[in-house]
Amino acid sequence: MRVAIAQLCNVVGDIWDNAERVADAMDWAERVEADVLVLPELVLTGYPVGDLVLHREFVAEAQEAVRWLADRSGSVVTVVGTVSAVPPRRSWDSLDRSVSISAAVLADGQHRGSYLKVLLPTHGTFDEGKNFAPGGEPGALWRIGDVVAGISICDDIWSADGPPEAQSAGGAQVLLSPNASPYHRTKPEGREELASQVARRNGVPVVYVNLVGGQDELVFDGGSLVVDATGSIIRTGAAFAEDRFVVDLAVAEPRAVTGPVRTVHTRPLRSRPVSAPVIVDRSDELDQTWQALVLGTRDFALKNGFSGAVLGLSGGIDAAITAAIAADALGADHVLGVAIPGPASEPSELLDAQEVAASVGIGFECVPLGRAVGALASALPVELSSEAATGVLPSLEAQTRSVLLSAIAEQRGLLLLATGNKSELAIVTSVLECDVVGDFAPLRDCPKTLLYRLARHRNAREATIPANVLAKQTTAQRRDDVDLPPYALLDVIVQRYLELGDGVEDMVADGLDAATVLDVLIRIDRVEFIRRRTPPGVKISPRAFGTDRRMPITNGWRAHRREDVEAWPGYGLRLEPETAGVVLEDRPSTVATGDGEPP
Amino acid sequence: MRVAIAQLCNVVGDIWDNAERVADAMDWAERVEADVLVLPELVLTGYPVGDLVLHREFVAEAQEAVRWLADRSGSVVTVVGTVSAVPPRRSWDSLDRSVSISAAVLADGQHRGSYLKVLLPTHGTFDEGKNFAPGGEPGALWRIGDVVAGISICDDIWSADGPPEAQSAGGAQVLLSPNASPYHRTKPEGREELASQVARRNGVPVVYVNLVGGQDELVFDGGSLVVDATGSIIRTGAAFAEDRFVVDLAVAEPRAVTGPVRTVHTRPLRSRPVSAPVIVDRSDELDQTWQALVLGTRDFALKNGFSGAVLGLSGGIDAAITAAIAADALGADHVLGVAIPGPASEPSELLDAQEVAASVGIGFECVPLGRAVGALASALPVELSSEAATGVLPSLEAQTRSVLLSAIAEQRGLLLLATGNKSELAIVTSVLECDVVGDFAPLRDCPKTLLYRLARHRNAREATIPANVLAKQTTAQRRDDVDLPPYALLDVIVQRYLELGDGVEDMVADGLDAATVLDVLIRIDRVEFIRRRTPPGVKISPRAFGTDRRMPITNGWRAHRREDVEAWPGYGLRLEPETAGVVLEDRPSTVATGDGEPP
Repeated sequence: MRVAIAQLCNVVGDIWDNAERVADAMDWAERVEADVLVLPELVLTGYPVGDLVLHREFVAEAQEAVRWLADRSGSVVTVVGTVSAVPPRRSWDSLDRSVSISAAVLADGQHRGSYLKVLLPTHGTFDEGKNFAPGGEPGALWRIGDVVAGISICDDIWSADGPPEAQSAGGAQVLLSPNASPYHRTKPEGREELASQVARRNGVPVVYVNLVGGQDELVFDGGSLVVDATGSIIRTGAAFAEDRFVVDLAVAEPRAVTGPVRTVHTRPLRSRPVSAPVIVDRSDELDQTWQALVLGTRDFALKNGFSGAVLGLSGGIDAAITAAIAADALGADHVLGVAIPGPASEPSELLDAQEVAASVGIGFECVPLGRAVGALASALPVELSSEAATGVLPSLEAQTRSVLLSAIAEQRGLLLLATGNKSELAIVTSVLECDVVGDFAPLRDCPKTLLYRLARHRNAREATIPANVLAKQTTAQRRDDVDLPPYALLDVIVQRYLELGDGVEDMVADGLDAATVLDVLIRIDRVEFIRRRTPPGVKISPRAFGTDRRMPITNGWRAHRREDVEAWPGYGLRLEPETAGVVLEDRPSTVATGDGEPP
Repeated sequence: MRVAIAQLCNVVGDIWDNAERVADAMDWAERVEADVLVLPELVLTGYPVGDLVLHREFVAEAQEAVRWLADRSGSVVTVVGTVSAVPPRRSWDSLDRSVSISAAVLADGQHRGSYLKVLLPTHGTFDEGKNFAPGGEPGALWRIGDVVAGISICDDIWSADGPPEAQSAGGAQVLLSPNASPYHRTKPEGREELASQVARRNGVPVVYVNLVGGQDELVFDGGSLVVDATGSIIRTGAAFAEDRFVVDLAVAEPRAVTGPVRTVHTRPLRSRPVSAPVIVDRSDELDQTWQALVLGTRDFALKNGFSGAVLGLSGGIDAAITAAIAADALGADHVLGVAIPGPASEPSELLDAQEVAASVGIGFECVPLGRAVGALASALPVELSSEAATGVLPSLEAQTRSVLLSAIAEQRGLLLLATGNKSELAIVTSVLECDVVGDFAPLRDCPKTLLYRLARHRNAREATIPANVLAKQTTAQRRDDVDLPPYALLDVIVQRYLELGDGVEDMVADGLDAATVLDVLIRIDRVEFIRRRTPPGVKISPRAFGTDRRMPITNGWRAHRREDVEAWPGYGLRLEPETAGVVLEDRPSTVATGDGEPP
């Protein structure tokens, strides 16, 4: 069977543009004389489509686009990811749902039927259970000439006892699988392993087609795969780029067909020699992460109509890496760095910022902060503008920087990039701080410790991040008002808490200091309110702050008593170190009072 | 059977404080010699509990609290809403889940077992399908002395063929139902209708216990109910307040017990005369909405450690109503209004702001804006600060107001209230605008047209909103840079789009102008990015902007062609009226080019 694979990029919601891209791929598949063309999950609507499908007009438009494509279809059997209106169906709650995720099967000018996705991921960033009805026919089969094929969509193949198993037991000789599988750092490897297992378990080849491109916080990394019936990978697609390719594969021997089968056409398929394997080695994890950051930033900008970006250049590593990502994404001459030195800024910081701009090759401007902040301070009520109001001025400075950057971005039509990283987002203290103000935050899911590795990785290709920027101590470690553990420790705590669900006892059992762990966990949960209002960024970890994680704002966990709750410091703005002592007071044996120093 | 009902308020996450409140209710239930005490859903953990349950320590702590309560339990059978660790279970996707929402049944110092919620609402604001495993025993029964009872949790009773039906068919004589059902304007009526139907359909009395209090965007409005076996309401609890009450009810005649039954105890229940009905009339919808706004604002402030609030007083109706809500919630002497008149502000606005403060009884300060904005403007690069930069200055003024208000709130430890309403949030143009900067936005889900009704409602009780504030034309209608339909039309379009899923064709069929509708719908979807970062507020409608609605940021719906996408105006900041012409160009018959005037 000759299978054509179109690993496309699309735009969520833009059904007609997406349909044109599918039509283009269909023309190509006819030219290369494929038997079957497989496209990604929801290629017509984009992924994730969210509550767009609650609008009847949207679903009707998608169905109209399927008819338009069906009219154009020829002898190549085309599997198009889309949504289908279905009879109202109840499942996990009392609500009827009447839209399913589907793969429409088109051939010979006809829409021959649709496979409806059975397993609907509803965890982490996925929310398919919210709006979609599950398909009720996991074992559905499709007769294509003399071959019987099964279609499974994305999560359908992640269960060891799902649609692929029903289909191959029912007679499928090949499994076609449209996917929209977003990147995180262990995903590409996991996907290869999975496709291989599914093929081996069922004794059928698997055609795994993934979407590519950035959408909001997600980056779909492509890397489509073809696996033979023994589980060996015989073809891989490009990572982080659109790709099209053709594979001649050996389907499994005919089996007794016991499952429900629809006939797509009855023309026998031409016999062809099986393709020789073409496998591109995956690049290493750091390089994949860099590519994800670049693609996510580029697509966020371009798909939202921005061809250029601006960012605040502080002279620190976060801003330097953000600048390098923006330059890789949009071209250095479409990126502007703006330094806004304050009255207390060290002159070396400005020089560093200038050096970063020169080294990355982006534009540079300097806007002194001094007069603006002084005027703001003097506009405040007397008791606030006096020197006694020591807590307010640093915050005023940060806010004024944000206002100036926003004005520049707005006036010049540039995307404003926030430079904050995941470590800082874990304990962010103000939604108006300079680092978190912006339209998009490329480093949002990158812990500080990863940034140093990313900088060295980028420098290995080409000297980009100046050595003195890499070497210097970071701002947050020097600030007097925030009592932070070193990033090396903070990042471990954040990762274990988010990705493993580990708690105080788990980490103390591994030798971490109880008071430090507790303090960090309390901070993370109490600033949820601020974090929720920060700009989106590129998800690169298994659990990012953002749509992955849905936490209450008002959250009394580890408060234990009402009087403690009432003494809450208000979203971390006035977080006192003493809060660390509040918790688990009735389980003192597990929480030793450490000396405050990390091990 | 004597049933004690405790309609409690709690704090999400604060398990031990919540447990103490439950223990207090248990003591009360013993004193009033109840047979059964029913508490709200997830009363121990709070609702919605979100991703807290992904932390093993959290679930373990809840289970420890259940043991602590079981130890204290006496002869009253207590039904406590909590979470339970369960064997890993798959259902609608490929992920195992090992926590269920449960009702723990406690008596005689023992935890007798738990009912596991079967139907897990996953739509609108509900996301139970994300983290919870469904219960697998919808027909579970509990023998309490000589009575057989069923327990169903919240959504379990909203299906016409769910756990209550299984339980009553299996032998239940009474149905106990813990709930966490948040308010929206048609909910209280719907709930009474529902409980009545469930009782009638199954021929058993229903004890419906609801949570009360504000949590993030939700307000649980209480209004617990007892319905007899004929569907007549025989007792109602307080709305928008904690309440406890006891009802002696007639359970259904004993039935053949065919369902799975666990024995809680075997002491025969004392026979008592049935209670006379005590039914409190529901207040009208406007009054309920006002109470929801007040309770939501009060609980957000107090549960997060703020006893006072500050807001910008513009002299407009939004700020006036926000001030009145804050005063009702926290006491007028805990609320501060700050007027920040700009160089172009009319003197009458300042006088109006002063009059609002005096009328509502809150504190008042005036901070002139002039010097601060001038200084900011002169700090900008030359071409931006020049008069040619006309687009920037109004935005600079708004941002400077935000900075000043934030500084005052931070310095004085006050909750900063944003004054924006739902109509403006639908088409919000900047995350830094004064109206949307703040910690909490009480009016977030109130359309502008509702605000006038709310003001008159509040004034009917006591003169609060000055007549000239009610009379004046609103800011947005006077701004030259935003081309808006009148609020009466805008609000209809927003409501039909959000709550009914209506599209252009539906509204045009009812006589609305196509170009106007289309322009509004495009604006709504394109500013999702900004809206997502605005502060939370009180949900009062069936579909609020916020957690109810999950829309993509990058969204090409109605763009149709890539060149249009690339011309996107960038989150509405530079929305041009021409965008209205882009859409549906291949279906001209349904979209007449109107004259721009609403009907």
